[in-house]
Order: sequence, then C-alpha cells, then structure tokens
Amino acid sequence: MSNPLLITEFLHRARDLFGGKQIVQYADGAEVHRYTYRDYYERVVRLAGALVRLGVRPGDRVATLAWNHHRHLELYLAVPLAGAVLHTVNLRLEPDEIGHIVDHAQDRVVVADSALLPLLGPARQRNPQMLVVCTDGRPEPGVLNFEQLVADGPELAEPPAVQEHDLAALCYTSGTTGPPKGVGYSHRSLYLHTFAACLADGHAICERDTVAHVVPMFHANAWGVPFAALMSGANQVLPGPHPTPAQIATIIEEQRVTYTGMVPTVAVDLVRHATRAGADLTSLRALVLGGTAPGVELIRAIEDDLGVPVFQGWGMTEISPMGTFSRPPPAADHDPALRHEYVRKQGRLLPGLRWRLVDDEGNDLPHDGVARGELLLRGPWVVDSYYRDPHPESFADGWLRTGDVATIDPDGYLEIVDRAKDLIKSGGEWISSTALEQAILEHPAVADVAVVAVPHERWQERPLAVVVPHREITPEELLDGLRERVPRWWLPERVVITDDLPRTSVGKVDKKRLRRSVPGPSADNAHGKARS
Amino acid sequence: MSNPLLITEFLHRARDLFGGKQIVQYADGAEVHRYTYRDYYERVVRLAGALVRLGVRPGDRVATLAWNHHRHLELYLAVPLAGAVLHTVNLRLEPDEIGHIVDHAQDRVVVADSALLPLLGPARQRNPQMLVVCTDGRPEPGVLNFEQLVADGPELAEPPAVQEHDLAALCYTSGTTGPPKGVGYSHRSLYLHTFAACLADGHAICERDTVAHVVPMFHANAWGVPFAALMSGANQVLPGPHPTPAQIATIIEEQRVTYTGMVPTVAVDLVRHATRAGADLTSLRALVLGGTAPGVELIRAIEDDLGVPVFQGWGMTEISPMGTFSRPPPAADHDPALRHEYVRKQGRLLPGLRWRLVDDEGNDLPHDGVARGELLLRGPWVVDSYYRDPHPESFADGWLRTGDVATIDPDGYLEIVDRAKDLIKSGGEWISSTALEQAILEHPAVADVAVVAVPHERWQERPLAVVVPHREITPEELLDGLRERVPRWWLPERVVITDDLPRTSVGKVDKKRLRRSVPGPSADNAHGKARS
Repeated sequence: MSNPLLITEFLHRARDLFGGKQIVQYADGAEVHRYTYRDYYERVVRLAGALVRLGVRPGDRVATLAWNHHRHLELYLAVPLAGAVLHTVNLRLEPDEIGHIVDHAQDRVVVADSALLPLLGPARQRNPQMLVVCTDGRPEPGVLNFEQLVADGPELAEPPAVQEHDLAALCYTSGTTGPPKGVGYSHRSLYLHTFAACLADGHAICERDTVAHVVPMFHANAWGVPFAALMSGANQVLPGPHPTPAQIATIIEEQRVTYTGMVPTVAVDLVRHATRAGADLTSLRALVLGGTAPGVELIRAIEDDLGVPVFQGWGMTEISPMGTFSRPPPAADHDPALRHEYVRKQGRLLPGLRWRLVDDEGNDLPHDGVARGELLLRGPWVVDSYYRDPHPESFADGWLRTGDVATIDPDGYLEIVDRAKDLIKSGGEWISSTALEQAILEHPAVADVAVVAVPHERWQERPLAVVVPHREITPEELLDGLRERVPRWWLPERVVITDDLPRTSVGKVDKKRLRRSVPGPSADNAHGKARS
Repeated sequence: MSNPLLITEFLHRARDLFGGKQIVQYADGAEVHRYTYRDYYERVVRLAGALVRLGVRPGDRVATLAWNHHRHLELYLAVPLAGAVLHTVNLRLEPDEIGHIVDHAQDRVVVADSALLPLLGPARQRNPQMLVVCTDGRPEPGVLNFEQLVADGPELAEPPAVQEHDLAALCYTSGTTGPPKGVGYSHRSLYLHTFAACLADGHAICERDTVAHVVPMFHANAWGVPFAALMSGANQVLPGPHPTPAQIATIIEEQRVTYTGMVPTVAVDLVRHATRAGADLTSLRALVLGGTAPGVELIRAIEDDLGVPVFQGWGMTEISPMGTFSRPPPAADHDPALRHEYVRKQGRLLPGLRWRLVDDEGNDLPHDGVARGELLLRGPWVVDSYYRDPHPESFADGWLRTGDVATIDPDGYLEIVDRAKDLIKSGGEWISSTALEQAILEHPAVADVAVVAVPHERWQERPLAVVVPHREITPEELLDGLRERVPRWWLPERVVITDDLPRTSVGKVDKKRLRRSVPGPSADNAHGKARS
C-alpha cells in the first residue's frame, strides 16, 4: 500500500492493456500520421532516455512550445519519466513574456515546434544555458532534432527515482492581474486528477472514447485529458497547429470522436460552421465547455441543433485544472430548457476537493443558492503556493482564494456570478457583469458579449456591453429584448457593436484592454437616456 | 496539494452535495426505516463523539458483528472519523474463531447485533477489556445500547488528527489454508479504492444509482461499495439480516435498484426465484458477480432471461478487494455469447494496480492468453504485510502472491484458471478444476458444481465432480454432455449428485470438507470405467 502515486504509472498500463489503441495526428484538416499505444510507449521510453543523456537531471524543467501533436503527447509522459518537470509554455504569449517565463522557471531544455523558434529569441538571450530541440524534425544549425533524439535514444532501463510529491509538470497562469504565476503539479496531484477525470459522474473518460485534443496542450495540462485518455486506453486524435472550426468538424466526423472539450469561443465558431456545412457531430457523447462560462444560447444550439450533449467543466490552472462538472440531475432529462440551465451553471465539486464560500471577512456563507461570496478551494490537486514566488495573498489558511464570486445551492450546484474584480458597483448596488452577459447572450442574434464597468459621476460605475452579433442588430433592439430579463438599473449605459472581442493569450476576453479601448465620455453621454 | 487522503473526506461531501439522498433499511423483506444523507451525517458525527467518550483512542480497533443495516453503515464512517479502525468480523464464523480474531486484533469495543451476542461468548472470555454495544436497541444488562449512545453522543467538534497511512479498517481472511490473517486498510488505500470503484470503466457507481448492499458488510468492506455510494451520492438500500432470494428481488423491484453485487451462489438462487415468480429486475444497470467465478450458464440466464447486464469483479480481501473488472469490448456488444464469454473471465486490471504472471521460479511469463502462472499484484490498495503477523511467504519483493494461477491475454483480460492448490495433477498433466467446473456448468441442468482431486494409485490424482442440479439428471447424462467439451482425460472419475455444497464462512465452496466427505475407495472404483 506504500506504492507511490506517479503519473508515469499509466504509461505501463497503456502498453500492457491497450497496446493496439490508436493515436492519430492531423495537420491542416487531414490525417497525416497514426500509430499505436505500443509505438507510443516505445517512443516515450526512448525520448526519456535521450533527455537523460542530454543531461536532464531529476527536477530539471523541460519546456515545450508546441501545438497539439503526437510529439507533444510523448513529451507529456517522457519528461516526468525522466524525473523532470514538463513546463508547457503558452505559444500565444509575446516573445518577451516567453523569455520572462523561461527565465523564471530556469528551463534546462526547451522543445519547440520549428515554426515557433522565432518566439524564443528573448528566452535564449535571458537563459543561454538552455538547449533547444525542434519537434517537427526540420534540421537547423545549433538546434537538436527531435526525431534524431528518439531514434538514438537509449531505452531508459531504470528511470530516476521519483517521489509522489515531486513535481511532474509546471504551467504559468495568464496573469490577468499581474505577472504570470507558476503552478507546479506533483506526480500525486496529476495521478489523482486523472482518476477524477475518469469518474462516471465526472468527464467519464473511458476506453470506448475517442478523444480529440482541441484544448491547447499548453493550457493547464490540456485540462488533464491526455493523462485520462492514457489511463483509460481511449483513442486519441491531435489536430495539429492552428485548427480551424472546419478542421475540428472534419476530425470529429472522420474519427467518430466521442469526447472533446473547448472554450466557448471555439464552440461558437464550430456551431456556426457545422450548421452552415451540415456537419454531423453526433458521434460526440460529450462536448465539454470550460475556460469561461458558456451562454445558454450556445448550449441550446449544440444540444438542440447539433444533437450533441454539452457539459460544463469549471476549473483553474491552479487546480490542475478540473474543479467542478455540470451534470444535470435526472429531473432535467426530459426538459431541455432545464438541462441547459444546469449546464450553464458550473456544476458540482469533484470528489476529493473541498470548498467554502466566504464574505469579505472570511466568514462562511450559507449554500442556499442566494448568498454570494468568494469561492475558496483546497484538495490534493489544488495548489497551495506558486512556483518560486509563494504569493501568500492568494491563499487563506491553506485555502486557495479563487477570486471568483459565486453562489452554491443546497444541492451543491455552483454558479460563478463574477470575478471579484468584475463586479460593477452602480449607485451602491452590485451588478454582476457575468449575469448581465448571460442575459444578453440569450438574445438569438448575439454570438458573444463582454460587459465592463465604465466610470460614472453620479453612479460611480455603470455597465457597458460590447456585443459581437450573428446578424445585424441595433443597440436599441438589443436593449428592448433585455428589458424583460434584467432589473431596469442593470440595463447597459451603452451597447457597442463590434466584430471581435480582444482576448488574452489563453482566449479569455481581455477586459483590461476593452476598458481602455472604450471612450469614457460617450458612455457618460449615453447614461442619462438609459437611466432616467 | 498536501491534503491527506482520508476516507472520512467523503462524509462531508455527502452532507454538502447529497443531503437529501436516501438510505433505506429493510428487514424480512419490508421497508422498515428510511432517512437522508443529512440525517446519516448527523448520526455518524454523534456516534464518533460517543466512541471517543467511551475511551476509544486513535488506532484502537472497534469491531462489528452485524448484518447489513444502517447502523453498520454508520459505523463504517464513524469509527474512522473517531480515528479508530473498523474491524468487521464475519458472523458466520464459529464462536471460537471469533474469539481468536477479536483477541488477535485486541479490539477495544465490539458492536454487535443483539441477536448475535451469543456468538461473543469466547471472545469476551479472551478479551475482557472489550465493551459490547448492541445495535438494535434492545437493552441488556452489562451491554451498552447503540441508540442511547447516538442520542447522548456529543458532536465531534474536532476529530482526532489522522494521517493517510493510518489504518481505517481491518478484515480477517477466511483462512482456507491456515488461521485467518488480518488485512489492514489505510485511509489512503480506501480513498483510492473508492475512486477506482466509481470510474466509468470500473463499477461506475454514480449519483443516479440506487445501490443495494447484498454483499455482507463483514466481507472486505462490502467490496468497497458503501464508500463508493457515499462519495457518489447514490441512494443506498440495506436488506437487514438473512435476506432470502425473494427478499432481494423485492428490494430490487420496490426500490428500483440499479446496481448490486453478490456471489454466484446467491445469484443462482435469485435467478431461480425471479424466473419462477416473474420478478422484474430490469431496473438493474449492473449485477456484479464476485467472490468466485460464475459459470457461463448463470451469466446467460441473468442477461438473457432476466434482461440484466452482468459484470464480473475479481478481487481479494488483501486488495480492498477490487482488482479487475470484466467489461466486454465493443466487439461483444451485439454478440451475447461473446459477451458472456468475456464476463466469465475476470477482466482487466483497475488503474493504479500492477500485475505480473510468474512461473515457479518467479520468471515473468508472456501475456499471450496461453501461458499460465501465478498472479502477483501490487498497488496503493494492495496489502504488503498482514496485521500483526507479516506472513512473508505471501509476498515476493513487495508483490502480493495471490495464489491464483491465471492467464492474461494480449488485450489484458485476466482469466483465473485455478487456485495454485486446486490444480489436479493426473498422470503428470495438470487439469484445471476451475476450467472443468466451467465446462460442467454449461450443462443447462447444472446449478452448481465443485471439482476436487481424489488420490489415485496409477494417475496420482483424478477429478471428482460434485454437482447440484436444477432438475433430475444422472451422472451418465452429465458425462455424455461433457465428452464434447473437455479432453477425454479430464472426464471426472465420478460424478456425485447432491443437494448442496459445503461452504466456508464467506460462502466459498469448502473443498477441504468436500475432499474429506467423499469416500476415496468408491472414486477409485469408478476410475477404471471412465478412464479406460
């Protein structure tokens, strides 16, 4: 019973039980490569051996700057097998930010897609010790070649001894409120998180699944799905660089994908494409939305128009990242509207985790579906300090302060009502920008929306809505539709119609940029009309 | 991420998320009591407080001698919550054996059903420190009353500090080859085992389930199902003392039970009753058979005649007890005979565990479905020593020697072909008594069978079959039917028709007794005829 909980455990399992299962690689919407779990195992063991021969020592960080492909999937296991720490770097960051992160993590090796090598300029200046390996095999002076390493790699006869609390992976948050913070994942935390991902009441990833990795593998362990697929023996499909909505639809159709996850923005585009092109996505038993809260209209469109069951998985980089799963209760089985309403909420806490809802003084609030407070979390896959920079202000007595304002109902369904910093204080009353966004998303013409606070002389702050429509719509039409659905004083001061929302590197709406880009005066001008 | 893995974690989860879910108590086939998870939580906390007030200290053993009822279910969590070790004692043992076990474990308290108090005579003599609490509330001089304890119990404000490697439970094996051996379960092992039980590819216990606890709660944590139900928020139904097949059928029908487990002997009786009485058991999404291998005819009858999906879960007291789960592959979805064949095998190893197949010298054998060797196991819920009596002969380099002879096919499906000691060596060739039993069970007239070796002058050993038929059948008819299905030299020397098989206290066929009860000479007499 003293066996350590190591994420590499599942590697042997995959070879012994699922040797014939498939890993399929796409690029530009076409299948380009396919191999078995047995092949995967062999390559991972050689790659780990090659890393050790390169000088990677237990605890060293090996960074990846890569899209979703089989080599990245090999690194997911080979780096921990070599006793090192897989540091997935977000390729959407600016080169300077990448340089900062690689320097902060003191990465020993960076494995990068050759097309992404230019992003590493500042990183190589700041961390000249770093070795760079190029994953897609095109040789380049001064850069090691991935395929050559695997070909020459000795099988790792005796993997370095690792303890379960040793780090296996590392990921930096997007840093919406300051510089990026490093989140380290121990072997044990990933092991337990993998079990949680495969629970019948969780994502229920299982051997019969064919999983498509749409979530970028540089985001919080790709939501943990690669590990869960490996443990379960599911077939895996990797879309390659820059997948378009049409390419994602092709992958789902061709490979009869049963499970995938994505952020709502990607799902909106996928729905639009699938509807227009008549794509058949009904092989999916679950499309999981996460990253930000989906609107009811998106959920409805996927379920009713495309015939695909939707679930929401809420999480954070700091929690590996799965926290809750929105599985509707039996009462919603034959009531689509109720089902959508449950999926719109963040759902129930995964077993193993604990939560609290607290007020500003840290007092516990009731789980009555009404009381709003900050959500605190703890558990075996919740971080309790940041990497090399503890940030004690993010923790309270061992609990992670999520920064999310939420309610929890008596049956344990979580609803995030806002980011603490995204509440709008209008005349002494709080307006939830999230709730207002949800209400606006219910309008069938609205594809996406962001609500931000704009300063106001009399009311201190007022909401401003920036709307991306499906079709032509005027601000007045939108406000008319909204009047029945929100309190009168929630009505936005102003509605801006736009083609696109500014996003952070992880695809979340960048409200900082949005606030800067909206001219204050015109919002103020509009106020009197809408308010009086 | 340093949060300890404690089995009591799921208690808080059950209260917070599933407060309204139901725990239903039957007795003599009728519902007698029902309460919510919220009530359960309250009683468990008070009971733990009462145990601490009684003088139970962290690490003390608290024994139970009880049928399956809600008070036993309360003890399952209250004892670990009090920091103590739940020691479930098999009520089918002789009083002297119970005395030995209670003495060996040095139990501090025994909680017994009042009807079972007489079984405790020798135990109370050997361990006079022991306090006895009677669970069904009838007062008796010198014996504490369970309901009074709960009523007076202070809520345990601050449960004793427990580490994850501390023991939470203890169970003695049935001791077929010697005195019973104690198996201690740590908090951590039960926690991980609970996750494994709820995996989509495992028993998949989930919130939508209504679970009936047919497996006695004194057997290896009732297969771990009470903990899994608590974690998932499933409704639970407890049948009370001595449930008959008719009462089990009533419980399934009335409560619309979706998941239950039982040994094949109980299942045979249940099928017989359900067929005769026309009971509707189709609410079951899974009937899990374990303890001993089921025959194909039983699997067929449950699936085809009753319309209930069957799975086999193989395990041992020493592994908490779940080891494998027989989920047939997609290829068997539309091929009932193939499906039954897969369920007859023991299935695939649960994630987290590792296995080896070794020959007599400890060399690894191939997983080719042909090579037979002893199965070794290790993992976070596999014991690596026995309680207070290490028995090093049962372990090899940290691996548990299961004593089972098995094959593993290239897809990882395990088939136990025999207990090491149950092989029959006939003229230098091994005959698998398990395989021969399986072949005999395929005869539609056969309800149950046991094959044992009988000594033989010329062939050293020969098989003898003891058969329990559904309807009248002669040994000759049976042998005729068998001739096509097994090699000629496997044909039993003799077939004995009987009404019942002798069983051990855990319901397994007692082959020791069987061998003693069969007269050697008559088996020898019969030999020449069948063999020549």
